[in-house]
Amino acid sequence: MTLRKLRAARRNSAVGADDALQSAGSRDERKQRTRRALLDAALELMQGERSFSSVSLREVTRSAGVVPAAFYRHFTGMEELGLALVDDSFKTLRRSMREARAAALPATHLIRRSVETFLGYAQTHRRHFQFIAKERFGGSSVIRFAVRKEVHLFTSELSTDLARFPLAGKISTEDLQMIAGLVVQTVLMATEVFLDMPQNDPEDAAQLYQQTEKQLRLIFIGAQGWRSKGAGRG
Amino acid sequence: MTLRKLRAARRNSAVGADDALQSAGSRDERKQRTRRALLDAALELMQGERSFSSVSLREVTRSAGVVPAAFYRHFTGMEELGLALVDDSFKTLRRSMREARAAALPATHLIRRSVETFLGYAQTHRRHFQFIAKERFGGSSVIRFAVRKEVHLFTSELSTDLARFPLAGKISTEDLQMIAGLVVQTVLMATEVFLDMPQNDPEDAAQLYQQTEKQLRLIFIGAQGWRSKGAGRG
Repeated sequence: MTLRKLRAARRNSAVGADDALQSAGSRDERKQRTRRALLDAALELMQGERSFSSVSLREVTRSAGVVPAAFYRHFTGMEELGLALVDDSFKTLRRSMREARAAALPATHLIRRSVETFLGYAQTHRRHFQFIAKERFGGSSVIRFAVRKEVHLFTSELSTDLARFPLAGKISTEDLQMIAGLVVQTVLMATEVFLDMPQNDPEDAAQLYQQTEKQLRLIFIGAQGWRSKGAGRG
Repeated sequence: MTLRKLRAARRNSAVGADDALQSAGSRDERKQRTRRALLDAALELMQGERSFSSVSLREVTRSAGVVPAAFYRHFTGMEELGLALVDDSFKTLRRSMREARAAALPATHLIRRSVETFLGYAQTHRRHFQFIAKERFGGSSVIRFAVRKEVHLFTSELSTDLARFPLAGKISTEDLQMIAGLVVQTVLMATEVFLDMPQNDPEDAAQLYQQTEKQLRLIFIGAQGWRSKGAGRG
Protein backbone atom coordinates (compact mmCIF):
# COMPACT_ATOMS: atom_id res chain seq x y z
CA MET A 1 0.00 0.00 0.00
CA THR A 2 1.40 3.45 -0.90
CA LEU A 3 1.54 6.16 1.74
CA ARG A 4 -1.12 8.14 -0.10
CA LYS A 5 -3.44 5.19 -0.19
CA LEU A 6 -2.80 4.49 3.48
CA ARG A 7 -3.59 8.10 4.40
CA ALA A 8 -6.71 8.02 2.28
CA ALA A 9 -7.76 4.78 3.91
CA ARG A 10 -7.17 6.28 7.36
CA ARG A 11 -9.07 9.37 6.42
CA ASN A 12 -11.89 7.24 5.11
CA SER A 13 -11.96 5.05 8.16
CA ALA A 14 -11.84 8.14 10.38
CA VAL A 15 -14.70 9.64 8.46
CA GLY A 16 -16.38 6.25 8.60
CA ALA A 17 -15.94 6.12 12.37
CA ASP A 18 -17.46 9.58 12.72
CA ASP A 19 -20.30 8.55 10.50
CA ALA A 20 -20.68 5.36 12.46
CA LEU A 21 -20.79 7.33 15.73
CA GLN A 22 -23.26 9.76 14.35
CA SER A 23 -25.50 7.10 12.85
CA ALA A 24 -25.08 5.05 16.05
CA GLY A 25 -26.46 8.07 17.89
CA SER A 26 -29.42 8.37 15.64
CA ARG A 27 -29.70 4.60 15.38
CA ASP A 28 -30.05 4.51 19.15
CA GLU A 29 -32.66 7.21 18.96
CA ARG A 30 -34.44 5.38 16.19
CA LYS A 31 -34.22 2.19 18.18
CA GLN A 32 -35.73 3.90 21.20
CA ARG A 33 -38.47 5.35 19.05
CA THR A 34 -39.33 1.95 17.63
CA ARG A 35 -39.34 0.42 21.09
CA ARG A 36 -41.62 3.18 22.34
CA ALA A 37 -43.89 2.73 19.30
CA LEU A 38 -44.20 -1.01 20.00
CA LEU A 39 -45.05 -0.46 23.68
CA ASP A 40 -47.55 2.27 22.81
CA ALA A 41 -49.15 0.11 20.14
CA ALA A 42 -49.69 -2.68 22.67
CA LEU A 43 -51.26 -0.28 25.18
CA GLU A 44 -53.42 1.19 22.44
CA LEU A 45 -54.62 -2.24 21.30
CA MET A 46 -55.61 -3.02 24.89
CA GLN A 47 -57.91 -0.03 25.18
CA GLY A 48 -61.48 -1.19 25.65
CA GLU A 49 -62.35 -4.83 25.96
CA ARG A 50 -59.12 -6.61 25.11
CA SER A 51 -56.68 -8.31 27.43
CA PHE A 52 -52.93 -8.52 26.95
CA SER A 53 -53.02 -12.24 26.10
CA SER A 54 -55.40 -11.60 23.22
CA VAL A 55 -53.08 -9.10 21.50
CA SER A 56 -50.78 -10.70 18.94
CA LEU A 57 -47.24 -9.73 18.00
CA ARG A 58 -48.34 -9.18 14.41
CA GLU A 59 -51.03 -6.74 15.48
CA VAL A 60 -48.51 -4.80 17.53
CA THR A 61 -46.00 -4.51 14.67
CA ARG A 62 -48.72 -3.61 12.17
CA SER A 63 -50.06 -0.94 14.47
CA ALA A 64 -46.54 0.41 15.19
CA GLY A 65 -45.77 0.41 11.46
CA VAL A 66 -42.73 -1.88 11.66
CA VAL A 67 -41.97 -5.32 10.24
CA PRO A 68 -42.13 -8.28 12.66
CA ALA A 69 -38.34 -8.73 12.38
CA ALA A 70 -37.93 -5.27 13.94
CA PHE A 71 -39.93 -6.43 16.95
CA TYR A 72 -37.35 -9.10 17.73
CA ARG A 73 -34.58 -6.53 17.90
CA HIS A 74 -36.35 -5.23 21.02
CA PHE A 75 -38.20 -8.11 22.63
CA THR A 76 -37.94 -11.88 22.47
CA GLY A 77 -41.72 -12.03 22.31
CA MET A 78 -44.95 -10.53 23.59
CA GLU A 79 -44.22 -11.68 27.13
CA GLU A 80 -41.05 -9.62 27.31
CA LEU A 81 -42.91 -6.62 25.93
CA GLY A 82 -45.53 -7.12 28.68
CA LEU A 83 -42.83 -7.21 31.34
CA ALA A 84 -41.39 -3.95 29.97
CA LEU A 85 -44.85 -2.40 30.38
CA VAL A 86 -45.03 -3.58 34.00
CA ASP A 87 -41.58 -2.11 34.60
CA ASP A 88 -42.54 1.22 33.00
CA SER A 89 -45.71 1.42 35.09
CA PHE A 90 -43.98 1.11 38.44
CA LYS A 91 -40.58 2.68 37.76
CA THR A 92 -41.36 6.30 38.58
CA LEU A 93 -44.37 5.56 40.80
CA ARG A 94 -42.19 4.27 43.63
CA ARG A 95 -40.07 7.40 43.52
CA SER A 96 -43.14 9.66 43.54
CA MET A 97 -44.56 7.86 46.56
CA ARG A 98 -41.24 8.01 48.43
CA GLU A 99 -41.17 11.75 47.87
CA ALA A 100 -44.75 12.11 49.10
CA ARG A 101 -43.92 10.18 52.26
CA ALA A 102 -40.56 11.87 52.85
CA ALA A 103 -42.19 15.23 53.61
CA ALA A 104 -42.60 15.53 57.37
CA LEU A 105 -46.30 16.13 57.92
CA PRO A 106 -48.98 15.21 60.45
CA ALA A 107 -50.23 11.67 59.76
CA THR A 108 -53.64 12.72 58.37
CA HIS A 109 -52.01 15.10 55.87
CA LEU A 110 -49.54 12.40 54.97
CA ILE A 111 -52.39 10.01 54.17
CA ARG A 112 -54.24 12.58 52.10
CA ARG A 113 -51.09 13.52 50.25
CA SER A 114 -50.22 9.88 49.55
CA VAL A 115 -53.68 9.14 48.16
CA GLU A 116 -53.53 12.26 46.00
CA THR A 117 -50.05 11.42 44.75
CA PHE A 118 -51.01 7.88 43.90
CA LEU A 119 -54.28 8.69 42.15
CA GLY A 120 -52.69 11.66 40.38
CA TYR A 121 -49.87 9.46 39.15
CA ALA A 122 -52.34 6.82 37.99
CA GLN A 123 -54.28 9.47 36.11
CA THR A 124 -51.27 10.78 34.22
CA HIS A 125 -50.22 7.18 33.49
CA ARG A 126 -53.77 6.11 32.78
CA ARG A 127 -53.14 3.55 30.07
CA HIS A 128 -50.32 1.91 32.01
CA PHE A 129 -52.54 1.54 35.06
CA GLN A 130 -55.44 0.23 33.06
CA PHE A 131 -53.02 -2.39 31.81
CA ILE A 132 -51.95 -3.16 35.40
CA ALA A 133 -55.58 -3.35 36.57
CA LYS A 134 -56.45 -5.78 33.80
CA GLU A 135 -53.40 -7.98 34.19
CA ARG A 136 -53.06 -8.05 37.98
CA PHE A 137 -55.47 -10.98 37.98
CA GLY A 138 -55.51 -11.46 34.23
CA GLY A 139 -54.58 -14.28 31.94
CA SER A 140 -50.80 -14.27 31.68
CA SER A 141 -49.19 -15.74 34.77
CA VAL A 142 -45.77 -14.27 33.89
CA ILE A 143 -47.21 -10.75 33.76
CA ARG A 144 -49.39 -11.41 36.81
CA PHE A 145 -46.44 -12.47 38.93
CA ALA A 146 -44.33 -9.56 37.70
CA VAL A 147 -47.08 -7.15 38.80
CA ARG A 148 -47.33 -8.92 42.13
CA LYS A 149 -43.57 -8.62 42.63
CA GLU A 150 -43.76 -4.87 42.03
CA VAL A 151 -46.64 -4.58 44.49
CA HIS A 152 -44.60 -6.56 46.99
CA LEU A 153 -41.60 -4.24 46.57
CA PHE A 154 -43.88 -1.28 47.00
CA THR A 155 -45.31 -2.83 50.18
CA SER A 156 -41.84 -3.48 51.58
CA GLU A 157 -40.80 0.13 51.06
CA LEU A 158 -43.92 1.34 52.80
CA SER A 159 -43.41 -0.98 55.75
CA THR A 160 -39.84 0.30 56.11
CA ASP A 161 -41.27 3.82 56.29
CA LEU A 162 -43.92 2.73 58.79
CA ALA A 163 -41.19 1.29 61.00
CA ARG A 164 -40.07 4.88 61.69
CA PHE A 165 -43.43 5.88 63.18
CA PRO A 166 -43.54 5.83 67.00
CA LEU A 167 -46.39 3.27 66.99
CA ALA A 168 -44.16 0.75 65.22
CA GLY A 169 -42.47 -0.18 68.51
CA LYS A 170 -45.30 -2.53 69.42
CA ILE A 171 -45.56 -4.08 65.98
CA SER A 172 -43.41 -6.91 64.66
CA THR A 173 -41.76 -6.65 61.25
CA GLU A 174 -44.12 -9.30 59.91
CA ASP A 175 -47.15 -7.36 61.12
CA LEU A 176 -45.81 -4.12 59.67
CA GLN A 177 -45.74 -5.91 56.30
CA MET A 178 -49.30 -7.09 56.93
CA ILE A 179 -50.42 -3.50 57.62
CA ALA A 180 -48.49 -2.09 54.65
CA GLY A 181 -50.10 -4.77 52.50
CA LEU A 182 -53.54 -3.65 53.58
CA VAL A 183 -52.68 -0.02 52.79
CA VAL A 184 -51.27 -0.82 49.36
CA GLN A 185 -54.19 -3.07 48.37
CA THR A 186 -56.65 -0.40 49.46
CA VAL A 187 -54.94 2.24 47.38
CA LEU A 188 -54.58 -0.07 44.36
CA MET A 189 -58.24 -1.00 44.56
CA ALA A 190 -59.21 2.67 44.68
CA THR A 191 -56.98 3.35 41.68
CA GLU A 192 -58.66 0.64 39.67
CA VAL A 193 -62.14 1.90 40.48
CA PHE A 194 -60.97 5.47 39.82
CA LEU A 195 -59.63 4.64 36.35
CA ASP A 196 -62.91 2.94 35.53
CA MET A 197 -64.98 6.06 36.28
CA PRO A 198 -66.30 8.32 33.56
CA GLN A 199 -63.57 10.98 33.30
CA ASN A 200 -65.99 13.83 33.63
CA ASP A 201 -67.47 12.83 36.95
CA PRO A 202 -65.63 14.89 39.59
CA GLU A 203 -68.29 14.15 42.22
CA ASP A 204 -67.76 10.39 42.07
CA ALA A 205 -64.01 10.93 42.10
CA ALA A 206 -64.24 13.17 45.17
CA GLN A 207 -66.34 10.57 46.97
CA LEU A 208 -63.81 7.87 46.16
CA TYR A 209 -60.93 10.08 47.40
CA GLN A 210 -62.78 10.66 50.64
CA GLN A 211 -63.69 7.00 51.14
CA THR A 212 -60.13 5.86 50.47
CA GLU A 213 -58.73 8.44 52.85
CA LYS A 214 -61.14 7.26 55.55
CA GLN A 215 -60.20 3.64 54.98
CA LEU A 216 -56.53 4.49 55.37
CA ARG A 217 -57.24 6.48 58.52
CA LEU A 218 -59.16 3.52 59.91
CA ILE A 219 -56.20 1.25 59.14
CA PHE A 220 -53.88 3.61 61.00
CA ILE A 221 -56.24 3.73 63.98
CA GLY A 222 -56.16 -0.05 63.91
CA ALA A 223 -52.36 0.01 63.74
CA GLN A 224 -52.24 2.28 66.79
CA GLY A 225 -54.22 -0.27 68.75
CA TRP A 226 -52.30 -3.26 67.38
CA ARG A 227 -50.03 -5.30 69.64
CA SER A 228 -47.87 -7.99 68.07
CA LYS A 229 -47.08 -11.04 70.12
CA GLY A 230 -43.52 -10.84 71.38
CA ALA A 231 -42.90 -7.38 69.86
CA GLY A 232 -42.69 -4.11 71.74
CA ARG A 233 -40.27 -2.27 73.87
CA GLY A 234 -42.46 -1.85 76.93
CA MET B 1 -119.03 -35.52 14.71
CA THR B 2 -120.30 -38.84 16.13
CA LEU B 3 -120.10 -39.49 19.86
CA ARG B 4 -117.52 -42.19 19.26
CA LYS B 5 -115.36 -39.87 17.25
CA LEU B 6 -115.72 -37.17 19.89
CA ARG B 7 -114.63 -39.58 22.64
CA ALA B 8 -111.72 -40.74 20.55
CA ALA B 9 -110.69 -37.17 19.92
CA ARG B 10 -110.88 -36.39 23.64
CA ARG B 11 -108.91 -39.48 24.48
CA ASN B 12 -106.33 -38.55 21.91
CA SER B 13 -106.09 -35.02 23.10
CA ALA B 14 -105.79 -36.21 26.70
CA VAL B 15 -103.03 -38.61 25.71
CA GLY B 16 -101.50 -35.83 23.70
CA ALA B 17 -101.54 -33.52 26.74
CA ASP B 18 -99.90 -36.21 28.86
CA ASP B 19 -97.28 -36.74 26.23
CA ALA B 20 -96.76 -33.04 25.98
CA LEU B 21 -96.35 -32.79 29.76
CA GLN B 22 -93.91 -35.65 29.87
CA SER B 23 -91.80 -34.42 26.99
CA ALA B 24 -91.97 -30.91 28.43
CA GLY B 25 -90.49 -32.34 31.62
CA SER B 26 -87.64 -33.97 29.83
CA ARG B 27 -87.36 -31.05 27.44
CA ASP B 28 -86.87 -28.81 30.44
CA GLU B 29 -84.25 -31.16 31.80
CA ARG B 30 -82.52 -31.29 28.43
CA LYS B 31 -82.72 -27.54 28.22
CA GLN B 32 -81.12 -27.19 31.66
CA ARG B 33 -78.41 -29.67 30.68
CA THR B 34 -77.60 -27.71 27.53
CA ARG B 35 -77.54 -24.44 29.45
CA ARG B 36 -75.21 -26.00 32.03
CA ALA B 37 -72.99 -27.41 29.25
CA LEU B 38 -72.69 -23.96 27.65
CA LEU B 39 -71.77 -22.30 30.96
CA ASP B 40 -69.27 -25.05 31.77
CA ALA B 41 -67.74 -24.85 28.31
CA ALA B 42 -67.17 -21.09 28.73
CA LEU B 43 -65.53 -21.62 32.16
CA GLU B 44 -63.42 -24.42 30.72
CA LEU B 45 -62.24 -22.30 27.77
CA MET B 46 -61.17 -19.59 30.23
CA GLN B 47 -58.87 -21.88 32.16
CA GLY B 48 -55.30 -20.70 31.80
CA GLU B 49 -54.44 -17.54 29.93
CA ARG B 50 -57.69 -16.57 28.27
CA SER B 51 -60.10 -13.82 29.24
CA PHE B 52 -63.84 -13.91 28.79
CA SER B 53 -63.80 -11.35 25.95
CA SER B 54 -61.47 -13.56 23.92
CA VAL B 55 -63.81 -16.58 24.01
CA SER B 56 -66.17 -16.74 21.04
CA LEU B 57 -69.73 -18.03 20.90
CA ARG B 58 -68.70 -20.56 18.26
CA GLU B 59 -65.96 -21.97 20.51
CA VAL B 60 -68.45 -22.34 23.36
CA THR B 61 -71.01 -24.20 21.25
CA ARG B 62 -68.34 -26.40 19.66
CA SER B 63 -66.94 -27.26 23.07
CA ALA B 64 -70.43 -27.93 24.51
CA GLY B 65 -71.29 -30.08 21.48
CA VAL B 66 -74.32 -28.08 20.36
CA VAL B 67 -75.12 -26.06 17.24
CA PRO B 68 -74.94 -22.24 17.49
CA ALA B 69 -78.74 -22.01 17.07
CA ALA B 70 -79.12 -23.94 20.35
CA PHE B 71 -77.04 -21.28 22.10
CA TYR B 72 -79.61 -18.62 21.24
CA ARG B 73 -82.38 -20.58 22.90
CA HIS B 74 -80.54 -19.86 26.18
CA PHE B 75 -78.67 -16.61 25.81
CA THR B 76 -78.96 -13.62 23.50
CA GLY B 77 -75.18 -13.62 23.21
CA MET B 78 -71.92 -14.12 25.05
CA GLU B 79 -72.58 -11.12 27.28
CA GLU B 80 -75.73 -12.68 28.69
CA LEU B 81 -73.88 -15.93 29.26
CA GLY B 82 -71.22 -13.98 31.16
CA LEU B 83 -73.86 -12.34 33.34
CA ALA B 84 -75.30 -15.78 34.13
CA LEU B 85 -71.83 -16.84 35.28
CA VAL B 86 -71.59 -13.79 37.57
CA ASP B 87 -75.00 -14.62 38.98
CA ASP B 88 -74.05 -18.26 39.57
CA SER B 89 -70.85 -17.24 41.33
CA PHE B 90 -72.52 -15.05 43.92
CA LYS B 91 -75.91 -16.70 44.34
CA THR B 92 -75.11 -19.19 47.08
CA LEU B 93 -72.06 -17.32 48.40
CA ARG B 94 -74.17 -14.62 50.00
CA ARG B 95 -76.26 -17.24 51.77
CA SER B 96 -73.18 -19.09 53.04
CA MET B 97 -71.73 -15.88 54.44
CA ARG B 98 -74.98 -14.91 56.11
CA GLU B 99 -75.05 -18.29 57.81
CA ALA B 100 -71.45 -17.89 58.93
CA ARG B 101 -72.21 -14.49 60.43
CA ALA B 102 -75.55 -15.50 61.96
CA ALA B 103 -73.87 -17.82 64.48
CA ALA B 104 -73.38 -15.88 67.71
CA LEU B 105 -69.68 -16.08 68.43
CA PRO B 106 -66.97 -13.85 69.91
CA ALA B 107 -65.75 -11.38 67.27
CA THR B 108 -62.37 -13.06 66.71
CA HIS B 109 -64.02 -16.44 66.08
CA LEU B 110 -66.52 -14.75 63.81
CA ILE B 111 -63.71 -13.27 61.72
CA ARG B 112 -61.88 -16.58 61.50
CA ARG B 113 -65.06 -18.41 60.58
CA SER B 114 -65.97 -15.84 57.92
CA VAL B 115 -62.54 -16.06 56.31
CA GLU B 116 -62.71 -19.85 56.34
CA THR B 117 -66.23 -19.87 54.91
CA PHE B 118 -65.31 -17.48 52.15
CA LEU B 119 -62.08 -19.17 51.13
CA GLY B 120 -63.69 -22.59 51.43
CA TYR B 121 -66.54 -21.50 49.21
CA ALA B 122 -64.13 -20.02 46.69
CA GLN B 123 -62.20 -23.28 46.64
CA THR B 124 -65.25 -25.44 45.91
CA HIS B 125 -66.33 -22.91 43.26
CA ARG B 126 -62.82 -22.46 41.99
CA ARG B 127 -63.52 -21.95 38.30
CA HIS B 128 -66.30 -19.46 39.00
CA PHE B 129 -64.02 -17.41 41.23
CA GLN B 130 -61.17 -17.51 38.78
CA PHE B 131 -63.62 -16.09 36.29
CA ILE B 132 -64.62 -13.37 38.78
CA ALA B 133 -60.98 -12.57 39.57
CA LYS B 134 -60.18 -12.21 35.88
CA GLU B 135 -63.22 -10.16 34.99
CA ARG B 136 -63.48 -7.91 38.04
CA PHE B 137 -61.09 -5.55 36.30
CA GLY B 138 -61.15 -7.32 32.96
CA GLY B 139 -62.13 -6.30 29.48
CA SER B 140 -65.93 -6.45 29.35
CA SER B 141 -67.47 -3.44 31.06
CA VAL B 142 -70.90 -5.13 31.26
CA ILE B 143 -69.43 -8.08 33.16
CA ARG B 144 -67.20 -5.81 35.23
CA PHE B 145 -70.11 -3.68 36.40
CA ALA B 146 -72.22 -6.77 37.13
CA VAL B 147 -69.44 -8.10 39.37
CA ARG B 148 -69.15 -4.74 41.06
CA LYS B 149 -72.87 -4.68 41.71
CA GLU B 150 -72.69 -8.08 43.39
CA VAL B 151 -69.75 -6.92 45.51
CA HIS B 152 -71.75 -3.84 46.43
CA LEU B 153 -74.75 -5.96 47.50
CA PHE B 154 -72.45 -8.15 49.51
CA THR B 155 -70.96 -5.07 51.19
CA SER B 156 -74.41 -3.69 52.03
CA GLU B 157 -75.42 -6.93 53.72
CA LEU B 158 -72.25 -6.94 55.76
CA SER B 159 -72.74 -3.35 56.86
CA THR B 160 -76.29 -4.16 57.96
CA ASP B 161 -74.83 -6.93 60.11
CA LEU B 162 -72.13 -4.62 61.46
CA ALA B 163 -74.84 -2.16 62.49
CA ARG B 164 -75.91 -4.67 65.14
CA PHE B 165 -72.51 -4.64 66.88
CA PRO B 166 -72.32 -2.39 69.93
CA LEU B 167 -69.50 -0.34 68.42
CA ALA B 168 -71.77 0.72 65.56
CA GLY B 169 -73.42 3.38 67.71
CA LYS B 170 -70.57 5.79 67.07
CA ILE B 171 -70.38 5.09 63.36
CA SER B 172 -72.56 6.66 60.66
CA THR B 173 -74.29 4.47 58.09
CA GLU B 174 -71.99 5.84 55.41
CA ASP B 175 -68.91 4.95 57.45
CA LEU B 176 -70.28 1.45 58.16
CA GLN B 177 -70.42 0.99 54.38
CA MET B 178 -66.85 2.27 54.14
CA ILE B 179 -65.69 -0.26 56.76
CA ALA B 180 -67.68 -3.11 55.19
CA GLY B 181 -66.12 -2.17 51.84
CA LEU B 182 -62.65 -2.49 53.32
CA VAL B 183 -63.51 -5.90 54.78
CA VAL B 184 -64.98 -7.22 51.54
CA GLN B 185 -62.10 -5.97 49.39
CA THR B 186 -59.60 -7.52 51.77
CA VAL B 187 -61.32 -10.89 51.64
CA LEU B 188 -61.78 -10.74 47.85
CA MET B 189 -58.12 -9.90 47.41
CA ALA B 190 -57.12 -12.83 49.61
CA THR B 191 -59.40 -15.10 47.58
CA GLU B 192 -57.80 -14.06 44.35
CA VAL B 193 -54.29 -14.65 45.67
CA PHE B 194 -55.44 -17.93 47.22
CA LEU B 195 -56.86 -19.26 43.94
CA ASP B 196 -53.62 -18.36 42.21
CA MET B 197 -51.52 -20.48 44.58
CA PRO B 198 -50.24 -23.91 43.62
CA GLN B 199 -52.97 -26.18 45.01
CA ASN B 200 -50.53 -28.34 46.90
CA ASP B 201 -48.99 -25.64 49.01
CA PRO B 202 -50.73 -25.79 52.40
CA GLU B 203 -48.02 -23.69 54.06
CA ASP B 204 -48.58 -20.71 51.77
CA ALA B 205 -52.33 -21.08 52.19
CA ALA B 206 -52.02 -21.15 55.99
CA GLN B 207 -49.89 -18.01 55.90
CA LEU B 208 -52.46 -16.25 53.73
CA TYR B 209 -55.30 -17.29 56.08
CA GLN B 210 -53.39 -15.91 59.02
CA GLN B 211 -52.48 -12.65 57.29
CA THR B 212 -56.07 -12.07 56.14
CA GLU B 213 -57.40 -12.78 59.61
CA LYS B 214 -54.94 -10.30 61.08
CA GLN B 215 -55.91 -7.66 58.54
CA LEU B 216 -59.57 -8.10 59.42
CA ARG B 217 -58.79 -7.92 63.14
CA LEU B 218 -56.86 -4.71 62.52
CA ILE B 219 -59.83 -3.29 60.63
CA PHE B 220 -62.12 -4.10 63.57
CA ILE B 221 -59.71 -2.51 66.03
CA GLY B 222 -59.81 0.54 63.77
CA ALA B 223 -63.62 0.42 63.75
CA GLN B 224 -63.65 0.32 67.55
CA GLY B 225 -61.63 3.53 67.63
CA TRP B 226 -63.62 5.19 64.85
CA ARG B 227 -65.84 8.19 65.53
CA SER B 228 -68.05 9.47 62.73
CA LYS B 229 -68.81 13.16 62.65
CA GLY B 230 -72.34 13.73 63.87
CA ALA B 231 -72.97 10.05 64.65
CA GLY B 232 -73.11 8.46 68.08
CA ARG B 233 -75.56 8.20 70.87
CA GLY B 234 -73.45 9.63 73.66
